[in-house]
Amino acid sequence: MSGNGFLAVDWGTTNRRAYRIVDGEVVATEQDGLGVRSIGVGGFPAEVDALRQRHAGLPVLLAGMVGSNRGWMDTGYVEPSATLADLATAVARPADDVVIVPGVKRIANGRADVMRGEEVQLLGAAAAGMTPPNALLCQPGTHCKWAWLNNGALADFVTAMTGEMFDLLKNHALIGQEMIGRVSADAAFRAGVAESARADLLASLFGIRSASLLGLRDRTDMASYASGLLIGADCRAHGGAGDVHLLADPGLGSLYSCAIEELGGSVRMIDSQAAFVAGAIRLWELL
Amino acid sequence: MSGNGFLAVDWGTTNRRAYRIVDGEVVATEQDGLGVRSIGVGGFPAEVDALRQRHAGLPVLLAGMVGSNRGWMDTGYVEPSATLADLATAVARPADDVVIVPGVKRIANGRADVMRGEEVQLLGAAAAGMTPPNALLCQPGTHCKWAWLNNGALADFVTAMTGEMFDLLKNHALIGQEMIGRVSADAAFRAGVAESARADLLASLFGIRSASLLGLRDRTDMASYASGLLIGADCRAHGGAGDVHLLADPGLGSLYSCAIEELGGSVRMIDSQAAFVAGAIRLWELL
Repeated sequence: MSGNGFLAVDWGTTNRRAYRIVDGEVVATEQDGLGVRSIGVGGFPAEVDALRQRHAGLPVLLAGMVGSNRGWMDTGYVEPSATLADLATAVARPADDVVIVPGVKRIANGRADVMRGEEVQLLGAAAAGMTPPNALLCQPGTHCKWAWLNNGALADFVTAMTGEMFDLLKNHALIGQEMIGRVSADAAFRAGVAESARADLLASLFGIRSASLLGLRDRTDMASYASGLLIGADCRAHGGAGDVHLLADPGLGSLYSCAIEELGGSVRMIDSQAAFVAGAIRLWELL
Repeated sequence: MSGNGFLAVDWGTTNRRAYRIVDGEVVATEQDGLGVRSIGVGGFPAEVDALRQRHAGLPVLLAGMVGSNRGWMDTGYVEPSATLADLATAVARPADDVVIVPGVKRIANGRADVMRGEEVQLLGAAAAGMTPPNALLCQPGTHCKWAWLNNGALADFVTAMTGEMFDLLKNHALIGQEMIGRVSADAAFRAGVAESARADLLASLFGIRSASLLGLRDRTDMASYASGLLIGADCRAHGGAGDVHLLADPGLGSLYSCAIEELGGSVRMIDSQAAFVAGAIRLWELL
């Protein structure tokens, strides 16, 4: 497909970000909180029509949870090793001028994993030369993705519930009442990263309460320490002691950078929006 | 102290268990839900008086959270290496004929840990010959204690939030809705124990949702799998591949036994109530 451009939409569970792309350039963007969760059953065609009407009726490429069983339709999955061409071959077309990208699933050694939306960023980064063709990429968040690229293809990936675990502990665990203070890449955070070397998360987390009880650590340091512990464990388990290409907002980016550098790794920051746009443009060319 | 016996009370956060001991034998017991949490501020003297009146006014030895800042009074801590004699020397005496056992704290390599009540069981088991003088003991629960005895003294210990983590995940995590079915020492539990070998808890837990989504594992197996994953991680981190003396109720006992045996370790079950009574009797003799 080509013509007078298209809309690329990164449509997640809680947010939606649209890019109007003409001749390979982003000429307009919009972002709102109309994530998949806030669209009622059967509401997607009307939402997409409204979006297109704001942008000259251009055709759309949708990626992310909009392609799940909670979205417009379940578009299924491709499997590693996966390329943008594989994704293009497997797109769903629920209506005229509407294309939805499939997710990626992986089942190996008794473990299953899935992604939806991240694959466009990951493969877009490689396609645009923002990463080398062989690279380890990390997308921190509620569910942090680690992805291994091989010759520019998505060879393997794993998801860790790092951000969700922090929120769970803070809001519902006995140690939650101790997890106060600002989280930043400070000395307490680095102490948490160091503690994660024990590979003993269940005990290290309990130690937060004991440390508070015995006055071993300032209570206002505890949230940062807990974050360092979890992010440290995440990075150690997934190659964070090596070269990591990080697709993250500034907040999580600084925390993951700190942890990776503490582990002796090195970080290169990648603009995740630019990576998504690059992936969407290449996908559109392949349709 | 000696005379016509005494009452030994294991007084935890949610439960209270009292043993009337005469001439080294338990002649009566009572158990109720009057844990420390359910006693109002200043309410302990009256509660203890009422208990003693039901038992001929015998003097009492109190152990557990009753000696914390949420209990009758904070009795402080002894430190490893700790013996029953060390505990006896450090008891508090908040009233006539009332003795409260201190807790044990440990601070080493930037990690803090505490116990209250478990120490009487652990040292009692060794004093009564229920364990060898050099042994690894495990007390599963919301907060699982692992303790290393050396020459009959408590040399080291660590606490893991294993049971609390299971409850947190089941009740509040995204994977909680998948954690259904009965938890038992079955094939799914053993698969969880095997998965814990990756030392990658944050990703293995996320995998529960992916496995459900992709139909890799029966949904009714997920709670058991999650339990195996957590208990497997707990055992691996704390010597569970060796000889373990387990002080547990039958339910948790069978799960920890299964995990330890899967790891190549061996289990000997210890009666935790008998161990507490043995520790209390020896402590009473030392006062």
